[in-house]
Amino acid sequence: MARATIKQVAEEAEVSTATVSRVLNNTDFVSDEIKERVMAAVNKLNYRPSAIARSLKQDRTYMIGVVVPDISNPYFMGISKGIEDVVGKEGFQLIFCSSDENPDKEKRLLKLMQEKRVDAVVLATSGGNDPAIKQLADSRMPIILVDRKPDSPEAGLMLDLVAEDNTEGASRLTRKLLEDGHKAIGVVNGPTRSSTGRERLDGVRKAMKEYALNEEPIVYNGDFSTEDGIQAVRHFLDADHRPTAIISLNNRMSLGVLLEIVRSGLRIPSDMAVASFGEVEAGPLLKESGIYYLEQRPYDMGIKAGEILLRRIREEAPLLKPAFEIYGTEVKQLN
Amino acid sequence: MARATIKQVAEEAEVSTATVSRVLNNTDFVSDEIKERVMAAVNKLNYRPSAIARSLKQDRTYMIGVVVPDISNPYFMGISKGIEDVVGKEGFQLIFCSSDENPDKEKRLLKLMQEKRVDAVVLATSGGNDPAIKQLADSRMPIILVDRKPDSPEAGLMLDLVAEDNTEGASRLTRKLLEDGHKAIGVVNGPTRSSTGRERLDGVRKAMKEYALNEEPIVYNGDFSTEDGIQAVRHFLDADHRPTAIISLNNRMSLGVLLEIVRSGLRIPSDMAVASFGEVEAGPLLKESGIYYLEQRPYDMGIKAGEILLRRIREEAPLLKPAFEIYGTEVKQLN
Repeated sequence: MARATIKQVAEEAEVSTATVSRVLNNTDFVSDEIKERVMAAVNKLNYRPSAIARSLKQDRTYMIGVVVPDISNPYFMGISKGIEDVVGKEGFQLIFCSSDENPDKEKRLLKLMQEKRVDAVVLATSGGNDPAIKQLADSRMPIILVDRKPDSPEAGLMLDLVAEDNTEGASRLTRKLLEDGHKAIGVVNGPTRSSTGRERLDGVRKAMKEYALNEEPIVYNGDFSTEDGIQAVRHFLDADHRPTAIISLNNRMSLGVLLEIVRSGLRIPSDMAVASFGEVEAGPLLKESGIYYLEQRPYDMGIKAGEILLRRIREEAPLLKPAFEIYGTEVKQLN
Repeated sequence: MARATIKQVAEEAEVSTATVSRVLNNTDFVSDEIKERVMAAVNKLNYRPSAIARSLKQDRTYMIGVVVPDISNPYFMGISKGIEDVVGKEGFQLIFCSSDENPDKEKRLLKLMQEKRVDAVVLATSGGNDPAIKQLADSRMPIILVDRKPDSPEAGLMLDLVAEDNTEGASRLTRKLLEDGHKAIGVVNGPTRSSTGRERLDGVRKAMKEYALNEEPIVYNGDFSTEDGIQAVRHFLDADHRPTAIISLNNRMSLGVLLEIVRSGLRIPSDMAVASFGEVEAGPLLKESGIYYLEQRPYDMGIKAGEILLRRIREEAPLLKPAFEIYGTEVKQLN
C-alpha cells in the first residue's frame, strides 16, 4: 500500500489538514471528539509523518495565497492548476485573490497575507508594489513571483521567479507580421507599470528596428482586458495612418481585438492581420483567419512554481538561492 | 467631508482593516508602532466607528470566502464583482476557492472555512454536500448560497439563496428551437448532482412536452466545462438520429459546442442550430449564427448577495428570515 498522506488522513477523519497537524503536533485546542477521529484515521491508514513533514513549522494554516491581476484569465488559472497539482498532494489548499490590475488593491491584499493567515504567497504583481513585496519577504513569508517581475532589478534578485521570456516572444511574434510585409502595425499593450507590459513592448520595438522600421508603432496602452482590445481597434480604425496588422500583447485583449474587427465588418487577415501574445480559446471560431499566436505553457510554469514553493515552505534555513525560471514561447498559426 | 470608513483608515495607516479593528477593540496583540500609526490615521481622518460597526463581532478577519465550482467562469466572476462592490466599501476582502465541480474538494474547502478564518461564506455548491453545509451553518458562520440550491428542499428553507429561475429559463430557450421547427434536439447538460443541472433539464423536458414531443431528448451529461461541449457534439454527430439543433445548458459548454461544430465544417444555424443557457462572450465572432442565448444578470445577483451578506454579518440575533431571491433570464438572439 502506498504511504498515506496527511490529506488522506484529513479526508478519512472529515477534518482539514490543518486540524490533523494541530492534533499531531498538539499545538492548539482541539476537541476530544475531533482528536479521536483524527487518531482513528491515523491508525486506520497507518499514517506516519515523513521526516520532511515533521520538520514543518507547527502553526501551518495549510493555505497558500495566490494573488493575481485577473483570476478569470485562463492563463493565470493554468498556472494555478499546475501549482495545485503539486501542493495539493501535500494537503495545501489554494485561496485566490484578484488585484484587478490595481496596485492599491494588491497592496491591501499583500497586507492581509502578511498577517500570517497563509503559509506562502504566489504573486503576479500589477507593479508599483516593491516596498510591500519586500516587507512581505522580510517577514519571512515564502513568496514566489509568477509571470511578472518586480519594478527594480535588485528586488528581483532576491525572490523566486517563474516567468516567460516576454521580450523574445514579442519579437518573434512581430517578425511574423513583418515577414508578411506589414509596415503599419498597431500594438495593443498592457499597462507599462507591469513588467510584462514593458518587456513585450520592448520586444515589438526590437523586431521593428531589425527590419529598419524606424517609425514608432502606433501603441494603445490598455489594462489587459477584453474591453481594451475593443477600444484599441476603434482607436486604430480612426487613425490617420491606419494599420494593416494588429499585435495584441495578451490573450484577453486579443479576444476584444477579434470581436471588434468582426463587428466592424472587416475580414481577418485580408483587411487586418492579427497576432496575439497568448492563445485565444475562441480563435478557431474564425475560419481562415491566419492568426499568429504565441503558445504559452502556464501549466508547466505552475508545476515548477509549486515545486519551488514546497521547498521554500519546508526548508527555511539556510535559505536556498532564489530560483529564476524563464520559459520560452513558440509562435503558431491558426488554420 | 464624507464620513471616513475603516477601509480609509487602514489605507492611511498602511495596515489591514482587521488590524484597525484589533487596535480599536483592543482584542489582540498589536505592536506599539502599528498602534500609533492606526491612531494617527483615526485622528487624521476623524474616524468614528458607526453604531453598526461597533456592534460588529470583535474578532473579524475581514475576509469573506467565496467557494465556486469554476473561478475562471465569467458568470461566477460577475457575481463576485457585485459582491465585492458592496462589501469592499466596508473593508471586507474576498478570497476565492475553486471546487472544480468536485464535491469532495468542496467539502474540504468548507471545513477550512469553518475553522473561522473568514467572516462569512458565499457558496455555489457542486452538490452532495448538504451535511457539510448544515454543519457550517450550525457553527453560526453566515453562509449564503448563490446560483445553486442544496440537494434537499428542507436544507434550502434554512439558508439565504440568490439564484435563477433555471426551469423557466431552460423552457423558454427550448421553445425557441421548437418554434423554429426543430424536433430532434441534442441537450448538453451539466451534472445532475447540481441543482442547476437538474432544473435546467426539467425545463427542457417541460417545453418538449408542451409541443407534444414525447420522445426523450438526446442528453449528454457533462461537467459544465468547454471540453464537455466538444465531446457532446462528437457524441451527437455519431448518433443514429442526429439532432438538427443543440441546446447547451451553460456558457462554458456552449463555447465547446460552437468550437466543435465549426471544426466539423458544419454551418450554424443551417446545419446545426444552437441555443445557450448564458451568454458566450466570443459568440459574435460567428457571423449570422442566429444563436439563441439566455441573458443572465450575475452582477445584479452579486449586489443582492452582498447586501444580504452585510446584514447577516452585522445582525446576528435575532436571525432574519432566510432571503430567497430568484432572478429571471431573458432569451436573446445573436445577429
